[in-house]
Amino acid sequence: APAVQLQCSVPQCRRCCWRRRLSAMTTVLSLSRQESMSFAVNMFKGHISTAQVFPFPSVLNEEQTQFLRALVGPISRFFDEVNNPMKNDELEQVEESTLQGLKEMGAFGLQVPADLGGLGLSNTQYARLVEIVGMHDLGVAITLGAHQSIGFKGILLFGSQVQKEKYLPRLASGETIAAFCLTEPASGTDGASMRTRAIHSSCGQYYTLNGGKIWISNGGLAEIFTVFAKTPVLDEKTGDIKDRITAFIGVWRGHDEGMKMGIKASNTAEVYFENVRVPAECVLGEVGGGFKVAMSVLTNGRSGIAAALSGTMKGVIAKAVDHAAGKTQFGSKIQNSGAVQEKVARMAVLQYVTESMAYMVSANMDGGSAEFHVEAAISKIFASEAAWAVTDECIQIMGGAGFMQDSGVERVMRDLRIFRIVEGTNDILRLFVALSGDSLPPSPLPPNPCRKAGLGPGRTLQGAVHPALSASGALVSECTWGWWGGRLLKEGQRDEHFVLKRVADCAIDLYAMTVVLSRASRSLSLALPSSQHEKVLCETWCLEAHERILRDLKALGSSNSRGLLSNVRDISAAVLRHGGVASMHPLGF
Amino acid sequence: APAVQLQCSVPQCRRCCWRRRLSAMTTVLSLSRQESMSFAVNMFKGHISTAQVFPFPSVLNEEQTQFLRALVGPISRFFDEVNNPMKNDELEQVEESTLQGLKEMGAFGLQVPADLGGLGLSNTQYARLVEIVGMHDLGVAITLGAHQSIGFKGILLFGSQVQKEKYLPRLASGETIAAFCLTEPASGTDGASMRTRAIHSSCGQYYTLNGGKIWISNGGLAEIFTVFAKTPVLDEKTGDIKDRITAFIGVWRGHDEGMKMGIKASNTAEVYFENVRVPAECVLGEVGGGFKVAMSVLTNGRSGIAAALSGTMKGVIAKAVDHAAGKTQFGSKIQNSGAVQEKVARMAVLQYVTESMAYMVSANMDGGSAEFHVEAAISKIFASEAAWAVTDECIQIMGGAGFMQDSGVERVMRDLRIFRIVEGTNDILRLFVALSGDSLPPSPLPPNPCRKAGLGPGRTLQGAVHPALSASGALVSECTWGWWGGRLLKEGQRDEHFVLKRVADCAIDLYAMTVVLSRASRSLSLALPSSQHEKVLCETWCLEAHERILRDLKALGSSNSRGLLSNVRDISAAVLRHGGVASMHPLGF
Repeated sequence: APAVQLQCSVPQCRRCCWRRRLSAMTTVLSLSRQESMSFAVNMFKGHISTAQVFPFPSVLNEEQTQFLRALVGPISRFFDEVNNPMKNDELEQVEESTLQGLKEMGAFGLQVPADLGGLGLSNTQYARLVEIVGMHDLGVAITLGAHQSIGFKGILLFGSQVQKEKYLPRLASGETIAAFCLTEPASGTDGASMRTRAIHSSCGQYYTLNGGKIWISNGGLAEIFTVFAKTPVLDEKTGDIKDRITAFIGVWRGHDEGMKMGIKASNTAEVYFENVRVPAECVLGEVGGGFKVAMSVLTNGRSGIAAALSGTMKGVIAKAVDHAAGKTQFGSKIQNSGAVQEKVARMAVLQYVTESMAYMVSANMDGGSAEFHVEAAISKIFASEAAWAVTDECIQIMGGAGFMQDSGVERVMRDLRIFRIVEGTNDILRLFVALSGDSLPPSPLPPNPCRKAGLGPGRTLQGAVHPALSASGALVSECTWGWWGGRLLKEGQRDEHFVLKRVADCAIDLYAMTVVLSRASRSLSLALPSSQHEKVLCETWCLEAHERILRDLKALGSSNSRGLLSNVRDISAAVLRHGGVASMHPLGF
Repeated sequence: APAVQLQCSVPQCRRCCWRRRLSAMTTVLSLSRQESMSFAVNMFKGHISTAQVFPFPSVLNEEQTQFLRALVGPISRFFDEVNNPMKNDELEQVEESTLQGLKEMGAFGLQVPADLGGLGLSNTQYARLVEIVGMHDLGVAITLGAHQSIGFKGILLFGSQVQKEKYLPRLASGETIAAFCLTEPASGTDGASMRTRAIHSSCGQYYTLNGGKIWISNGGLAEIFTVFAKTPVLDEKTGDIKDRITAFIGVWRGHDEGMKMGIKASNTAEVYFENVRVPAECVLGEVGGGFKVAMSVLTNGRSGIAAALSGTMKGVIAKAVDHAAGKTQFGSKIQNSGAVQEKVARMAVLQYVTESMAYMVSANMDGGSAEFHVEAAISKIFASEAAWAVTDECIQIMGGAGFMQDSGVERVMRDLRIFRIVEGTNDILRLFVALSGDSLPPSPLPPNPCRKAGLGPGRTLQGAVHPALSASGALVSECTWGWWGGRLLKEGQRDEHFVLKRVADCAIDLYAMTVVLSRASRSLSLALPSSQHEKVLCETWCLEAHERILRDLKALGSSNSRGLLSNVRDISAAVLRHGGVASMHPLGF
């Protein structure tokens, strides 16, 4: 039995409501509550499980490597020479010539098996190509991702052979476009609030859909939709009829929504259903099993985001450095300014962490792990925030030039804003990360590994990290222990988002430390040309992440933190009551 | 003699170069190196000078208050009913009807004396009106600000009576528009790198200008320009001829520059001069005194930015709260979510600090202080970063809706990006703030006031803050002492931007603590209806700012910090050498 109660005893307790629903996500993703191989899941138990993270996985075989190499060059050239991101942004659609070229290269069916017309790529191969797209044009990335990363991913993962053969060949060629329809006006990440309903006909041959979906990427271009609706389903245990989500494959047409801040080249539409009949054979997966379909598809999608945004950062860093090398201020190139150097270094560290996470998660997926959900969520949170920070600093380095459209950086910034919102807002994903630890039975409080040298595996990274990085490795052990202590400290306030957010931040920092330790260790072992540089990147990240974690954990247990939480409640209550700023103007009016 | 050497002994030392030039800013603004009334300047000496900050100043007399009240209503209504920010953004210019209405209300000559056709407002009155503009439309705010806050401000501050009478009436009515021409392709905040030159004719009657200016707000609309150029000037002490900056009033026309990320409604142009003759009577201020003109105008402008952005935040917070009260997720209004409550509370705190700074600085200016330069720089840095954070959180609370143009928030975010760059980038202003302390002779190391109760004035805020806030007041004393310690710690590495940035951050936090303590103390003393709310806002800010300051100061003295600085240098050197990301790809290609 879990030592930490998931719910309080108040029926319909408002606070528990989100908690119940979020934990449903964990459950449906079958996170093991007993033994887990996932580093992220284990760290919540104060346990270091190196199996999935050390050594940094290399999952491509020779043939896969050769095939990928053969794709990287042409696709990079295509984006350099054919695609025009500025034009796409201005036109508010991807130019037809670009779409055509991408279809010819197979970019619309990257992971569809070869016998169904796709390129049959693994997740790692997919990540490498998505990285190129993300470097050049996030509007195109969203168009391609909405199509294959989520649009028809449900068919790929859960479709019957008949469904796969019927839909995938034309989707893989790009002849038809796909879209993923989950979000509704009253429910985003929260599937349980869904209002779209599908009622099975008495003859059993079709379902009648009513409802509507909003912010559907590709919704105005797509012909094939994966749509989620609530269906009444018999609970065999209790004999009750309950609403459960079911996934359907459908053919509709959306209506374009208004203008957006960014990713303008991508299409966004709303789709409404009024007594629409869907044949019963269009149910995707099991009747009532739609929540699992949705969560699985989104988890897969999240891992692609990290790869795309790692590419975005690479492009942005090159622009910043190019500017810094050319611009003179105060009588010296600005690249000689300590302020610019600090920015550049931090940008490089963030890119290194994101890239490492992206390829760690894709390798875990390719390695057949069933447990990459927490890691995928962490990589999406981290990548979307890191890319935002890096692009913001690039604009700051470029000054006025970065604010002009022809720099191409302001577009990236506009495009990036949505990545902290789509496919699960980072706020909800943080709760998901924090709660994935809470649902686990904790192991007994371990001794402090910092105080006892030479502890065996399970509590330290000794033996896993390269000796040159042992100091940084020790910081992970220290944090994992402190983490455990932190969990204890938060007993009694653990229903608070205020606390859970900080727990998630620690989890993200800790996972990031481990991932870069793994990658830099491999580089050092292989004596790669950049291994010394990677060592410094890794050490820098670990130094600061370690400080943040200890600070967060300390704060969680301090009286200041409780005072702050009470202040936060008071202030927000007043502001919400006033419908805005609640303090009197200093002039009185 | 200053205890801290401004320059090293290496001639033409690159590192000292920016330092020399930045300290020129301090000098030209005549910051007193002996006795200063400025809180910000004194805190660098470990000294708490309450004169300018306690009690929170009320500078408007009854007549000024009545006049301002009579303006606030109509101007608010005008922005609610006539101005259309979304339309202005789309048209990439302010609608003619809006411009006309603003001119009729006197909004183009708010601070021009009444006898020259303006409204003759004080800085505090001006701040209150700019706040309204900033709440509704930053494109209009930039148009108005470029005209009067910097465009013709030089004429107002330094013009001869003849110049004032010649130009100000038509500028105040908006019949002619003004622009401020300082920035060049090779020089932004750094006036010393200026390339535009003005050569006095042998007859003495005119100057011949050659050069060019970029990113001139209103440059394509304006007829009257304040332009800065280098002129050869005889140094009377040495007999040498040296290049000095001189300000001119001129009549030109700019060429519109490309499209921008935001403030699209405002005009941005480049202005080029090729053998342009300017009559000698158009010199503004003294020949060779242009740097002082520029710095004074910009300092004045900065204080207006805080007021405008305080208004922006107010508008954005109201939008976020409105959304949070209406949107349901996980079965409950999102305003009940702890994550949203924390965001709302932090947004309210940031607005409170910004608003307090804006009216503190404007009151100091109106009170006749000659020392508000460091405070104005701090308020600009703080406001531009706070408004950015608040608007970003508003979009996060609104989710997808915030990313859509019709929400009106994404436009605010696009508009805001330039405020961390214009009128001195926040990076350069941070150096300016940090160095303004360095140029002062420090007083002897004081005892730690935290350890000794009952210290007299000069080291504590006792007696100045309201008794209910004494705990927060004590945090200021503790920081001021720690600050002093921190200054000592940084000896030997003080040429580093890395260190100076952190010193500036501490200065900003400390000034912010003091300003909100002053304002909340006044509210408590007057028993204003919102005084308890303000107390909590103030305590929350002080709690967190205090922690940040101690952490920064501790870090500055730690070996981790020195290691980090060395890592930053290594990493950026590698990235700059590679022209981008320098680590090998995890897949090897």
